Amino acid sequence: MAFFVLISAFAPVAGKNHYFSVMIPFQITFLGSGSAIPSLHRAATSQLLRYDNRTILIDCAEGTQLIMQRMHISPVKLEKILISHLHGDHYFGLIGLINTMHLIGRTTPLSIYGPAALYNILTVQLEAAETVLRFPLHFHPIALHENQLLFADEQLKCHAFPVKHRIPAWGFRFDEQPGTPNIKEECIQQYDLSIEQIRNIKQGRDLILPDGSIVPNDSLVSANKERSYAFCTDTAFHPPIAEAVKGVSLLYHEATFASNLQAEAEATWHSTTADAARIATMAAVEKLVIGHFSSRYKDLDVLAEEARTLFHESMAAYDGLTISLE
Amino acid sequence: MAFFVLISAFAPVAGKNHYFSVMIPFQITFLGSGSAIPSLHRAATSQLLRYDNRTILIDCAEGTQLIMQRMHISPVKLEKILISHLHGDHYFGLIGLINTMHLIGRTTPLSIYGPAALYNILTVQLEAAETVLRFPLHFHPIALHENQLLFADEQLKCHAFPVKHRIPAWGFRFDEQPGTPNIKEECIQQYDLSIEQIRNIKQGRDLILPDGSIVPNDSLVSANKERSYAFCTDTAFHPPIAEAVKGVSLLYHEATFASNLQAEAEATWHSTTADAARIATMAAVEKLVIGHFSSRYKDLDVLAEEARTLFHESMAAYDGLTISLE
Repeated sequence: MAFFVLISAFAPVAGKNHYFSVMIPFQITFLGSGSAIPSLHRAATSQLLRYDNRTILIDCAEGTQLIMQRMHISPVKLEKILISHLHGDHYFGLIGLINTMHLIGRTTPLSIYGPAALYNILTVQLEAAETVLRFPLHFHPIALHENQLLFADEQLKCHAFPVKHRIPAWGFRFDEQPGTPNIKEECIQQYDLSIEQIRNIKQGRDLILPDGSIVPNDSLVSANKERSYAFCTDTAFHPPIAEAVKGVSLLYHEATFASNLQAEAEATWHSTTADAARIATMAAVEKLVIGHFSSRYKDLDVLAEEARTLFHESMAAYDGLTISLE
Repeated sequence: MAFFVLISAFAPVAGKNHYFSVMIPFQITFLGSGSAIPSLHRAATSQLLRYDNRTILIDCAEGTQLIMQRMHISPVKLEKILISHLHGDHYFGLIGLINTMHLIGRTTPLSIYGPAALYNILTVQLEAAETVLRFPLHFHPIALHENQLLFADEQLKCHAFPVKHRIPAWGFRFDEQPGTPNIKEECIQQYDLSIEQIRNIKQGRDLILPDGSIVPNDSLVSANKERSYAFCTDTAFHPPIAEAVKGVSLLYHEATFASNLQAEAEATWHSTTADAARIATMAAVEKLVIGHFSSRYKDLDVLAEEARTLFHESMAAYDGLTISLE
């Protein structure tokens, strides 16, 4: 009983560093699952990564801010924005979103990670409007040609890695930081642990019982499995991606085309369902979600089915889908 | 009876130079009637001017291309795009629209008229994407500080004129070119005119009757009244605008605020309903349509009513409204 009471007490500030581990929410919401040619039934790429009460936007197609408004997600809450590359269906909504943050009075800093040329693109538009942003905008250019740690803090670390497209483009990998270990529920009851004892065990100490005997730490705790998410678009089939996304809990990999359009995929530096499934297999990820679908596909079942044939844990993204990593 | 048969025959290529004048369509469609802060119930500024079978876009807020798609208006058909100023709610959709024209294979030239800095804004984004447009894009910067003829052809002429905003901004005035005069219907029947006689009368000649008597040209024809449209946003109350839009058939003038927010309007370089109605009165226009409404206004009746109190022929724009000039 005490277990549930404590969880309840800690729930509003759920986090790994509390006495009892409550799973921190780690969710990906697909705001758009379409590709370059605008479509009324599928928005272009943007995704929200939510971890704990933090929100990170990945890509920002035209209209993203209205989709967020429809979902009651305030742009003021965005902590970081990552832009994969400078094709319009991945960033044309960014300047409008920044402008709206300014107009509605954001004052907290915003970090943007993207291709170096993005800085000038934003600057010339802000200057033309004579807009001096009310919030600090920290721009972080992504290095060409190599894997790069974009940021790391107590909860997450994020790497960018090159993918293979007509212009420089990057994927992103987000890894949850190792947390304090969970204490096995049966041990809490068996030894009637105090809060002091729990804190000590979580810090790696053994448990000393009243009779002086010692219970080793590793028999009391179970290790956390760190969750991870990788985002890969736009890209042709590119084996080095498998190395970069190795073992992630969830891989988003573009599959602009069905596998019968392999030649078209190669000509346009995109992937097929089969390409995405091959990368998922090579990287031994837990789950694959495909997206960035050509506007020619109204029904996505065939695409999901193709991916599933080669990699069982596959699904197709759709606008509004949220996947929680458990 | 012959009259209607002839109209029917000419209708598909309706134009002023045919024997019987058929009114050439001259329509304004309001794609968005809102202002800077994005709203789910009102898009930001963009308008379509359609004359005959030509289509001109005025301003191009984020999302304009999707609104056009919903209305089944192909971007390939756009002949010209005019941008009033470089605040985002008037042009952030332009680069996406241009990109889509490129992707769907437009090859016909496109003329863009706008502030000089717009050229660089478009260029840096096309260069970042390594996009070489498949169609010629002719950019025409608008001169600062003075009225300027932007273009004139056999159907329309268009002037830009400065308005009063925080950054350089222009209004646009479109005037139908004078057409050949209409022959009075009763004269056609009274004199049983042949096609040859009609052509001569339209060219300004008198009619010579079989008995040698002469019917003067001016008793046979009625002059056309040339239609005109003026677009004014974003602007504070600015009397020189009244001179620039003098006597137009339809004036679009922004009215971001109701008249009780005069101070707010002045502080933000915008107009109230009363300001718009005063300009309409001073310019002696035929009709006024107000727009660019602050997102605080859900119900526009009060705004329309305020304008109507000062200028009777007033109405409020709404997204999707089309006004035909007759």
